[in-house]
Amino acid sequence: MINVQDIEYFNTILGEDRVFTKEGINEDFSHDELGGISKKPEVLLEVQNTEEISKIMKYAYEKGIAVVARGSGTGLVGASVPLEGGIMINMSSMNKILEIDEENLTLTVEPGVLLMDIGKFVEEHDLFYPPDPGEKSATIGGNISTNAGGMRAVKYGVTRDYVRGLELVMPNGDILNVGGKVVKNSSGYSIKDLVCGSEGTLAIITKAILKLLPLPKKSISLLVPFPNLELAIGTVPKIIKSKSIPTAIEFMQREVILSAEEFLGKKFPDNSADAYLLLSFDGNSKEDIEKDYEKVAQICLEEKALDVYIVDTDERKEAVWNARGAFLEAVKASTTEMDECDVVVPRNKVAEFIKYTNELQKQFSIRIRSFGHAGDGNLHIYVLKDDLSEEKWNNKLKEIFNCMYQKAMDLDGLVSGEHGIGFAKKNYMFKQYGEEYIALMRNIKTAFDPKNILNPQKVCE
Amino acid sequence: MINVQDIEYFNTILGEDRVFTKEGINEDFSHDELGGISKKPEVLLEVQNTEEISKIMKYAYEKGIAVVARGSGTGLVGASVPLEGGIMINMSSMNKILEIDEENLTLTVEPGVLLMDIGKFVEEHDLFYPPDPGEKSATIGGNISTNAGGMRAVKYGVTRDYVRGLELVMPNGDILNVGGKVVKNSSGYSIKDLVCGSEGTLAIITKAILKLLPLPKKSISLLVPFPNLELAIGTVPKIIKSKSIPTAIEFMQREVILSAEEFLGKKFPDNSADAYLLLSFDGNSKEDIEKDYEKVAQICLEEKALDVYIVDTDERKEAVWNARGAFLEAVKASTTEMDECDVVVPRNKVAEFIKYTNELQKQFSIRIRSFGHAGDGNLHIYVLKDDLSEEKWNNKLKEIFNCMYQKAMDLDGLVSGEHGIGFAKKNYMFKQYGEEYIALMRNIKTAFDPKNILNPQKVCE
Repeated sequence: MINVQDIEYFNTILGEDRVFTKEGINEDFSHDELGGISKKPEVLLEVQNTEEISKIMKYAYEKGIAVVARGSGTGLVGASVPLEGGIMINMSSMNKILEIDEENLTLTVEPGVLLMDIGKFVEEHDLFYPPDPGEKSATIGGNISTNAGGMRAVKYGVTRDYVRGLELVMPNGDILNVGGKVVKNSSGYSIKDLVCGSEGTLAIITKAILKLLPLPKKSISLLVPFPNLELAIGTVPKIIKSKSIPTAIEFMQREVILSAEEFLGKKFPDNSADAYLLLSFDGNSKEDIEKDYEKVAQICLEEKALDVYIVDTDERKEAVWNARGAFLEAVKASTTEMDECDVVVPRNKVAEFIKYTNELQKQFSIRIRSFGHAGDGNLHIYVLKDDLSEEKWNNKLKEIFNCMYQKAMDLDGLVSGEHGIGFAKKNYMFKQYGEEYIALMRNIKTAFDPKNILNPQKVCE
Repeated sequence: MINVQDIEYFNTILGEDRVFTKEGINEDFSHDELGGISKKPEVLLEVQNTEEISKIMKYAYEKGIAVVARGSGTGLVGASVPLEGGIMINMSSMNKILEIDEENLTLTVEPGVLLMDIGKFVEEHDLFYPPDPGEKSATIGGNISTNAGGMRAVKYGVTRDYVRGLELVMPNGDILNVGGKVVKNSSGYSIKDLVCGSEGTLAIITKAILKLLPLPKKSISLLVPFPNLELAIGTVPKIIKSKSIPTAIEFMQREVILSAEEFLGKKFPDNSADAYLLLSFDGNSKEDIEKDYEKVAQICLEEKALDVYIVDTDERKEAVWNARGAFLEAVKASTTEMDECDVVVPRNKVAEFIKYTNELQKQFSIRIRSFGHAGDGNLHIYVLKDDLSEEKWNNKLKEIFNCMYQKAMDLDGLVSGEHGIGFAKKNYMFKQYGEEYIALMRNIKTAFDPKNILNPQKVCE
């Protein structure tokens, strides 16, 4: 329990205007984007620099107070909910881009910088930060913490692949620099790679050095309608096998497109087919990418695509990708409550998994919507509550989730592709990994945080 | 101390013909490619599968016997030397390529497969395993254990970036599967990324799932002579900044080329200049890469390159890259003994570092040779003993290494880019990282190996 003395100490470090308690704490800080789990911190601290965080952690470590660091709160697994009350550190004011280094192709940022701001900034320098998760208002600290992937993972990989170095505040307040601007590193255990994806349980990220690439000069998208989803998704392994690797391969169904049209009040270029693949290609000249997309278009047509629309004007691109970006919000707006499953399976198992969720939909008489990254095997499957009673909803959801995670396991998939484990997905991960694996994770947690004060009850705890 | 009972137990698991002791153990197994440190194991066990290793580890864990796993023994930091005697597990018979999956673009291999065999095999399938360390007779298990980088890291990254999943035998004999064929993964702490680069101290790698790319259809190299090394290396940041990223940028000096000519008994295409950059470009068509290399050639000429040779015939390519591949052996053959420093610095600091080693050469009156990966900041610097007495050599080497590692630190570099820490570089890493960082690594080691039986005295121990 936080007491008056604690608050006084925080006031001396931060000043009273950056220390919030009780009604002074906005309700937003009690939850992320996942429904059904919320708790307010006892004290909310708005920090501006690494030293402040170090002092807070030293104090919390000594007193054994739980601490959760929070960015934009756009998570979907409850990872930033302060389950034990205690201290919440609001990182969002640490949002400065510190340096762009064009000789080393790196960008150094504070953790509260928003993903959308990074994209804009580096493109002005003709450079490119490839990871492209759908939620652009997430912070980079949050993206690193869940090892977010996004749409371009097919060609470019995930967030971890673009983190070269981190500044960390450890649970005991020590400040550690791991990695750096260097391209190669074989200097001891890779703490950097371990902290990426650790959802704020091992250390607080206070600075990141990101790897950039030259900005591809041209991009083009293909929108490919198919008679049904199975044909659409069944085409993906054939595309991969063709060795013409697109930047992104997304799949979508008519129902989701209709929801997005309604949500945005804008028409999608085509909504006549049952299922679509949306592919993008990038490169440095039109000719470069033409060869690739012509080959892929040909494969789609051989696999019974109804047509292939080339999306090459800015206007069309915006219409298509804006709709894609709005899917999550649109599906959410179409129901009373929803929960999601973010499994990842080998790319050639996507079709089988989606077919299975369609069966579940019928079996449980519930609406299930899905869209996602067909090209990298990461699915986002939404189960919708609609007008179900709370009790029925909870029971059905539990059963459906059990079925889906079991299926993912059977297909050699994993519990989460990019949204993480947080609090909500722990049991599914425990079940898949088994005792020894979880015991090892707990040992690692203890190696960083022997008093278990940093984001307790998350991931493996 | 291994006793008769232990040997009997190993005989029952493996059969007597795969259990070696005393004079039955070839002297090769007492050392790697680093001079000055050697020790024979008490028993050498030749294993054929994961279950055998699991049984050995269970037994060793119970009895507290030290175990070292060894591949080809091509390391340069003593990481595979069994400093405490005990058990050595020879992994080199586990050398089967298990599966190529063209729909998921993955290759599943046993750890004893040689790097050269992987390259050959996947290219027959029109696929590409990008990591390209100089030592092609290293095993993939060894490459993963040091997170080897190689020449193509400039464009393609390092070994860790191409490991999707691992099967591990833990120090207590448990078998763990981490990662998989999946492209994205946010399912708990990334054990896979931590084991990559851990030099056999955390777990024994018994299987690896590697990521492949489509094989680029064309490649071309440029050999660019410069009046001196500073001009050559000073050009590299300008190339990176131009956003035409080559696949590889190597630098070499005349003396090293002459050694290689002598060693190979073959002429290098040009040996008239003091210093060279060797660049390679790859892509899917000649036109694709022409644009890039023309731009880079222009930059080189502006930076006072003496000429630009295009290396596009197979014959020329072989001459140049064979010579590059023989540098290490050629330098080694030119002296009595040598030791090396494998620092990595930010790419725009390479010139400053090399200039400094030239000063050291004069200051200490000793031969220092260097070549390496100018494009990714990873330098290989060889200090040569020549006719120095053992005592003088040891003293000079110590002083020179202290100077070089201090300089790397001052330039925000790290102790090792790709050869690892092993036994030989521990003190330099300890000095750079400081107590808290090393304590954290030791905690991680304990999380995996509470009895400290797996490759003891290495990396952080």
